[in-house]
Amino acid sequence: MSGHQVTITFAPDGQQVSVPAGTTLLWAAQQAERDIVATCGARGRCRSCRVKVVSGTVPPPGLADRIQLGEDEVRERYRLACQTAVAEDLTVLIAPALEEAAFQILAGAGDLRSATSCALDSGVRKVLVRPQPPSREDHQSSDLEELLREVVEPVTEVPLQFLRTVPSLLRSAADGLTITLFDHGLLALEPGDTRAQAYGMAFDIGTTTVVGYLVDLSGGEVLETASSLNPQSAFGGDLMSRIAFAQESPSNVRQLHARILQLLNGQIEEVCAKAGVARDQIYKVVAVGNTAMHHLFLGIDPTYVGQAPYAPSVRRSLRVTARELGLRVHPNAPVFLLPLVAGFVGADTVGMVLATRIYESRETRIAVDIGTNGEVVIGSQQGLTACSAPAGPALEGAQIQCGMRGAHGAIDRVWVDRDVAYHVIGDGPPLGVCGSGLLDAIAGMLDAGVLDASGRLHPEPPSRVPDGLRRRVTALPGGMPAFVLAWGAETAAGKDIVLTQADIRQVQLAKAAIRSGITMLQRLRHAPDGQIEELMLAGGFGNYLSIRSAVRIGLIPNLPPDRVSYVGNAAGLGAQMALVSETERRRADDLARQIQHVSLADHPDFQDVFLEAVTFPEA
Amino acid sequence: MSGHQVTITFAPDGQQVSVPAGTTLLWAAQQAERDIVATCGARGRCRSCRVKVVSGTVPPPGLADRIQLGEDEVRERYRLACQTAVAEDLTVLIAPALEEAAFQILAGAGDLRSATSCALDSGVRKVLVRPQPPSREDHQSSDLEELLREVVEPVTEVPLQFLRTVPSLLRSAADGLTITLFDHGLLALEPGDTRAQAYGMAFDIGTTTVVGYLVDLSGGEVLETASSLNPQSAFGGDLMSRIAFAQESPSNVRQLHARILQLLNGQIEEVCAKAGVARDQIYKVVAVGNTAMHHLFLGIDPTYVGQAPYAPSVRRSLRVTARELGLRVHPNAPVFLLPLVAGFVGADTVGMVLATRIYESRETRIAVDIGTNGEVVIGSQQGLTACSAPAGPALEGAQIQCGMRGAHGAIDRVWVDRDVAYHVIGDGPPLGVCGSGLLDAIAGMLDAGVLDASGRLHPEPPSRVPDGLRRRVTALPGGMPAFVLAWGAETAAGKDIVLTQADIRQVQLAKAAIRSGITMLQRLRHAPDGQIEELMLAGGFGNYLSIRSAVRIGLIPNLPPDRVSYVGNAAGLGAQMALVSETERRRADDLARQIQHVSLADHPDFQDVFLEAVTFPEA
Repeated sequence: MSGHQVTITFAPDGQQVSVPAGTTLLWAAQQAERDIVATCGARGRCRSCRVKVVSGTVPPPGLADRIQLGEDEVRERYRLACQTAVAEDLTVLIAPALEEAAFQILAGAGDLRSATSCALDSGVRKVLVRPQPPSREDHQSSDLEELLREVVEPVTEVPLQFLRTVPSLLRSAADGLTITLFDHGLLALEPGDTRAQAYGMAFDIGTTTVVGYLVDLSGGEVLETASSLNPQSAFGGDLMSRIAFAQESPSNVRQLHARILQLLNGQIEEVCAKAGVARDQIYKVVAVGNTAMHHLFLGIDPTYVGQAPYAPSVRRSLRVTARELGLRVHPNAPVFLLPLVAGFVGADTVGMVLATRIYESRETRIAVDIGTNGEVVIGSQQGLTACSAPAGPALEGAQIQCGMRGAHGAIDRVWVDRDVAYHVIGDGPPLGVCGSGLLDAIAGMLDAGVLDASGRLHPEPPSRVPDGLRRRVTALPGGMPAFVLAWGAETAAGKDIVLTQADIRQVQLAKAAIRSGITMLQRLRHAPDGQIEELMLAGGFGNYLSIRSAVRIGLIPNLPPDRVSYVGNAAGLGAQMALVSETERRRADDLARQIQHVSLADHPDFQDVFLEAVTFPEA
Repeated sequence: MSGHQVTITFAPDGQQVSVPAGTTLLWAAQQAERDIVATCGARGRCRSCRVKVVSGTVPPPGLADRIQLGEDEVRERYRLACQTAVAEDLTVLIAPALEEAAFQILAGAGDLRSATSCALDSGVRKVLVRPQPPSREDHQSSDLEELLREVVEPVTEVPLQFLRTVPSLLRSAADGLTITLFDHGLLALEPGDTRAQAYGMAFDIGTTTVVGYLVDLSGGEVLETASSLNPQSAFGGDLMSRIAFAQESPSNVRQLHARILQLLNGQIEEVCAKAGVARDQIYKVVAVGNTAMHHLFLGIDPTYVGQAPYAPSVRRSLRVTARELGLRVHPNAPVFLLPLVAGFVGADTVGMVLATRIYESRETRIAVDIGTNGEVVIGSQQGLTACSAPAGPALEGAQIQCGMRGAHGAIDRVWVDRDVAYHVIGDGPPLGVCGSGLLDAIAGMLDAGVLDASGRLHPEPPSRVPDGLRRRVTALPGGMPAFVLAWGAETAAGKDIVLTQADIRQVQLAKAAIRSGITMLQRLRHAPDGQIEELMLAGGFGNYLSIRSAVRIGLIPNLPPDRVSYVGNAAGLGAQMALVSETERRRADDLARQIQHVSLADHPDFQDVFLEAVTFPEA
């Protein structure tokens, strides 16, 4: 550090932050609470944190800038924020990543009821009472006893705060009082009749995406949904780099914890405003997430989750109060976290098992959550086995040269025939390609012969390849083969949207992780394809990919199409079920104990299976 | 075990239980849910579990039987149930526990074990563990599971704060970790072996005096005691004026609450410093107090306690955490308040009932707590009845012209014969007169004829009054008659210490309140003096007064001296018992439900009885 302070100004709003010279732009942005995604964990290995220096002397580019951004962007004053130290005052523009709106995150209302039915027994109960103060006749009574006289079930826990309000409430309750109970505890006391208002929140906290559901506890309907990028992404896009960040210092753990809480509180505010619901009338919260997200939500250091044997700090289901966690719903509301199974098979997997009801299936079924941290569960009434399948972020469009999330401007469908046709989310000119487009493109390129089964993109395609495709095969400045999905003239930026050889390798590794997990579990359960009644695709990405393309590239086994189904955001669905039904929430505890976890890496067959899964199936 | 079953019959009711031969009589009794006290924890170190073998071959005595019971009892077929294994069918009689318990309380020593028999089962349990982080072999485990692996009982509650420390604690516990549990909850985690340190605090919060006891939970000993004036006295010496102050504004309630908390925290600091105990190793707190003190301790507005029908805001026993209350012991320590019965029959009365074991007496007993807010309990195994007896502070020396508390410089004993002799606490010159001196003086003045039965102090005493007393009868400047207890020349201030006619009237009203309570309860229970097995005097004042004087002035009925006993600060003792024994604490809940409360003022006979009690008995 050179000792003096410099001022960084963020365009377009002009927010300023003063930092010591020598700090990185990423760190400066974090001080200003500007969200910059750092998918690779600030190691200069991706381009997600790029910024444009709008005014001031642009710092000289480093090697990482040149590799990740290319000479064009370097010349256009783009730099990787994580690699760029500031020496003087600068104005920077953060590249549009988080501003992208309209994510196709699966958050559809109505999922719950269409996917499954469960008892409405949220445990939250409201009783209207019209109490009178103790009278001379009942001199062996008390204010509290009179207040609870009309409540049928025993109320064993009354928080101190209510004991303090009981005397005056009892004597000013002309319109009656509504008592809210949960599990024999007094949760809220409200003047008047508020029995019609009883709400809950379910959260699915993903590594990349966070979805919050506001649910009417009496009817079970999802009233509103909020989806956001996980703001922790600024400190590492994949789990391991985020854990590495946490490991650096306890204050980093606190920062990650604070970020996710802030986001959830924002979502609560958002859905409450939309639905016209008071935050204080949310009386129960259920959250799911993978082990690292679960721990960070609670403020637990996830360091050891990232080290062999990858054991969680706590696996059992937990109940904390909104007050102690700092969640801005009713302060006494219980916040439940579904239990974890092991290592990277977290509460989200338990949620998926709950929602898919795979545990009561007579035939063997497979549920796959395709995400940055994928999980596979196989089983039936006879038992369940699960493993994690760390695909990395490639299938979500990250660490792909022209990749992007499934947002406005993304190519999400690709047809390869004599030439390439595609669909863009929002129907405007394309900005990049998202995961489902990527899969379609690769499947089409395989069929057309542009790509061989080993994943090699031929610089000179075989003669059977039509001209329309042949001229799309090109080479990047460094010589790497690439395939043009959209010509510069068609795109928003005026530059070709390409799929590079490196991108294809990334997809191969990602799909091999998922597929080898499926194959290993099938072997361990002695369940060949013919015995699989159904394969269920869950998770944000799983619901947008084309099943045909997924089979073609070998992401999933070649089952008859009617045996593959989309089941929506099953983890979030499981959280909603546990929210509206204590029966389901308790079932989750039993399930977590029953699910057998398999650590694939420890299995002698795994290397073989994985390497086999890397190649693409023959046509 | 010899494999066959034997039948144990319990006299006198003939209940039977079948147990394997070779088990102890204590275990057999526990199977039959017969209560046998095993004070020493079934180690043969006390005699509390002795039983008499009524029929069958009495098992040979062991060494413990001979030591604890002596040859006489051994010959009379007594055995220690904890040491006696059964080989054949037996009929046994469980020895009566009550007489012993009641007798022991008379000792009034600070050591709880000598004072009363109760099981040492505080509920606070410490376990030393030497955990290892999860290893590859147990990949379906977690830090928390490894931490609790050696803990036998289920731990269902783990506060969030511990979940956050578990990962690092587990990996830095070279010398082991001590886990403190209470009621299936994790209360504390301490590095190293701290099993020898487990403490609790019992508080008796009186209107005038607050006593705090630091207790070693493993042995039951009181290590230190702190006694202070209730600082709320600054806002009203008697309950009603304190309630009136609280009623003025919520901030007054907060002020009274803050004052008492501050005092208790001061007492905690004081006893911990004296005993060399860390505040954080106090894991359980039990408090008793009358209804208003109870409410103010919790920060509950006592306004309605002071208005007919004088109903408390809450009667049930309560458990709050030290953290939420602001008590500076271990923040997770449970703070228990014993339950209230009704109005002014508070948790202190329940504590007194617990300590005196009046509930298990075969004969009718009376327990009287003589204090500013007195309470009377009458009863036996057949049931208990209680009333409040608001004596006011006169008996504690307040609102008496030369009155003072029983402190250094107080005349605490007075002998009236041809002249007056007195004893001064600390043996220096007197400063004033305290309650016990007051009673002695009045009793002596009655005997000498200076005072008549109506309570009138004769300006001209009858001729039989000796000269030494006669010249002590004087008149104050306003003309009010007074009696000089100590001449100015003898006193610290150089001024006469006198007893005025008004003082005598105050004492009459005070003693009438207590006595009419006793009489009313005797009437309601149809228990004339002849049927009263014992009258127990409890409370700070009750333990210093002369029984002879108390009988002479009619404060208590004229029972044979051996039927009146001092039982020490029974309310505080009850709090200590609930502290060291969860059995006793739970018993308090049952007792509070069973005690029938009588509101004297509502009874048609009361006015007569009270007015009669105002006069002094004839010689």
